[in-house]
Amino acid sequence: MRLPELRVMGVDPGLTRCGLGAVEGRPGAPLNLVKVGVVRTAADEEIGARLVAIEAGIESWLDEVRPDAVAVERVFAQNNLRTVMGTAQASAVAILCASRRGLPVALHTPSEVKAAITGSGTADKRQVGTMVTRLLRLEEMPKPADAADALALAICHVWRGGAHNRLAEAVARANSGPATSAAAYFRGRGRAAGYSRGTTK
Amino acid sequence: MRLPELRVMGVDPGLTRCGLGAVEGRPGAPLNLVKVGVVRTAADEEIGARLVAIEAGIESWLDEVRPDAVAVERVFAQNNLRTVMGTAQASAVAILCASRRGLPVALHTPSEVKAAITGSGTADKRQVGTMVTRLLRLEEMPKPADAADALALAICHVWRGGAHNRLAEAVARANSGPATSAAAYFRGRGRAAGYSRGTTK
Repeated sequence: MRLPELRVMGVDPGLTRCGLGAVEGRPGAPLNLVKVGVVRTAADEEIGARLVAIEAGIESWLDEVRPDAVAVERVFAQNNLRTVMGTAQASAVAILCASRRGLPVALHTPSEVKAAITGSGTADKRQVGTMVTRLLRLEEMPKPADAADALALAICHVWRGGAHNRLAEAVARANSGPATSAAAYFRGRGRAAGYSRGTTK
Repeated sequence: MRLPELRVMGVDPGLTRCGLGAVEGRPGAPLNLVKVGVVRTAADEEIGARLVAIEAGIESWLDEVRPDAVAVERVFAQNNLRTVMGTAQASAVAILCASRRGLPVALHTPSEVKAAITGSGTADKRQVGTMVTRLLRLEEMPKPADAADALALAICHVWRGGAHNRLAEAVARANSGPATSAAAYFRGRGRAAGYSRGTTK
């Protein structure tokens, strides 16, 4: 099954740094970087001003990038109580902005993303950053880590074939075969040193 | 110090039921109900559609009610892990809608609200509902509890003199004297059976 090319914008939500990264590609084909960056807000600003700034940043990205889908990190209340409320609030803004435009929104857990990009659901940030750099054939690792994480979310979503609900995700996982994880992506290439065009399928 | 009359919209955030309630008044003067209700979204809808519906509901309320300030329940990650993410996301939408219009947003904790309305920070929902009904001279208790809680938030905020930051709140608390809690509000009236106009100051 050859899925259409998809432009996906990933959002690693946060109040202080909201990572944004857009890629284009399809499962089993080269991925291209579209844009990467962060929206920052100051910790001493009021929460309302911070959310308004994040909304403005995401809106301007959506206007420019025109993604087919938006992938947002799924936040769990269990993780890091200190920052989880801000993360949940920033994620709500991202989901709202995308949904208002009628864009499909996918939520992926950090371990789903890590597993898709590195082959291990418990990979560390550096490993994710290294794989993002390699998969997008970048000269250096996107910084800060939030920006790299946003790209990882977008890549994960492209590899899942743009599925945005559980049923579709299950079908995509069943259909997409070896191209759904970076480990498989580089399978049989010896050292995973780079990417050469159009060889995966 | 006689503070100006204030119209406050309270938001008890939630995805399934987002309580909304607006009151008008000033510390030490009769309070009037402006509007009370809930925005509901279905649990089987996607999160994006739910947040868009909540945004539309709050926007339509803000257009109609034209509040001077918005009071939103402050959510803590510690409380009820099962629903806290949805609560945080709904609160983000409420804060965003108000802040986009330049309205001051106040966050009050549930115990601050309970203490202001009932005299006890650990009062139950029924006690809060009873006091809201009494303070607004309503014929029956607003239902569901989320609607009554939204009114309680708005009342709490009026009684704090519309302060929306910590410094202003501290000043308001210091200045507003006996009218800041319902216990004091009804002080010296024997049974707190009702409210008679213009006797508090």
